Amino acid sequence: MTLENYLPIWDELTKEQQDMITSQSMQKRLEKGTCLLSNDKECHGFLIVETGQLRAYITSPEGREITIYRLFERDICLFSASCMMKNIQFEVSITAEQDTQVWVIPAPVYQSIMNSSLAVTRFTNELMASRFTDVMWVMEQVLWNSMDKRLATFLLEESTIEETDTLHMTHEQIASHLGSAREVVTRLLKSLQEEGMVRLSRGTIQILDYEKLRSLAD
Amino acid sequence: MTLENYLPIWDELTKEQQDMITSQSMQKRLEKGTCLLSNDKECHGFLIVETGQLRAYITSPEGREITIYRLFERDICLFSASCMMKNIQFEVSITAEQDTQVWVIPAPVYQSIMNSSLAVTRFTNELMASRFTDVMWVMEQVLWNSMDKRLATFLLEESTIEETDTLHMTHEQIASHLGSAREVVTRLLKSLQEEGMVRLSRGTIQILDYEKLRSLAD
Repeated sequence: MTLENYLPIWDELTKEQQDMITSQSMQKRLEKGTCLLSNDKECHGFLIVETGQLRAYITSPEGREITIYRLFERDICLFSASCMMKNIQFEVSITAEQDTQVWVIPAPVYQSIMNSSLAVTRFTNELMASRFTDVMWVMEQVLWNSMDKRLATFLLEESTIEETDTLHMTHEQIASHLGSAREVVTRLLKSLQEEGMVRLSRGTIQILDYEKLRSLAD
Repeated sequence: MTLENYLPIWDELTKEQQDMITSQSMQKRLEKGTCLLSNDKECHGFLIVETGQLRAYITSPEGREITIYRLFERDICLFSASCMMKNIQFEVSITAEQDTQVWVIPAPVYQSIMNSSLAVTRFTNELMASRFTDVMWVMEQVLWNSMDKRLATFLLEESTIEETDTLHMTHEQIASHLGSAREVVTRLLKSLQEEGMVRLSRGTIQILDYEKLRSLAD
């Protein structure tokens, strides 16, 4: 598929803008685990996920992490271009959770088109609103939900994404998704196991009782 | 002062757009305590604070609150117009913390100009990025800082805003700013009092030791 299939506003661009994007964008392969963006003001440009999966997260001064959203096929990564956006004064890190193929529209190209195209600026606005909505969801989870509910929600989500009942994740990784500490996750997982909802073994968590897990999550 | 003094992009508007805004906007007085926006999808339009102070917050299903940002003179309230913004899928409540005078640009007027003006769409984008940054700051506070640090930060902030060392606030109000429970705030305030940082009396909190409070906050 070509880049235009991934950009919903393609038809609202001028021929010149389309040509500029086509000639200057490139495909890039990110191996699983690649850290695309860390807290150092890099500006990779505007990324569109072709295949794979990216995780956006923030990090505490002590190195704790919390996932703020994930990007899948056709999703667009705005914060890899946050240098272009006035008033964005926070740092988001992004890593590839799977081998990931992306389209990269370099920052200066996107910036130049945004400066002249109402459609692109409006589109950027809508993307930011989507990510803002994602972050507000996480914030509400953190504020109003207990960690056992959040863990249950996360396990169900992960099972849907991976399309399996057996998750290959360490307790440390789960803690980094939820902004928690490994020991807390381990303790809660053990209590879920005691209640028959999951079975834990080295490096895997198998979901045994979806219904019970769902009723905990709600 | 007229409306144009409050809109940094005034000069980028066409004469027609300026006339449309001038003729259809109005000034509105909000008494202290007025709830401008609750969780019911009202769409007041684009608000600009002339004098006074607004508080934006989110609410849990059980009625707990947390302040996500505050708006002062010349600040612009974006979420009072969130009906105009595609992909904003969360609810923000707004109340007047002081008697507040605002300019209101009705939603259809702003929407119509945003649909044709790159400058206005870009400006909206920058406003959203500012509010996004505010929310990320709150999220980091909630995630990585203990409640006693956050309380100290809040008391210092409030003292700066009110320009006094004696704050007239209930523990309940402070809890609603911080997304906490009244009992937690009461317990922490008592411990600050024991350490000589504040003096508590009925309905007031007097800051006695700014330096000590600052070193707790940092």
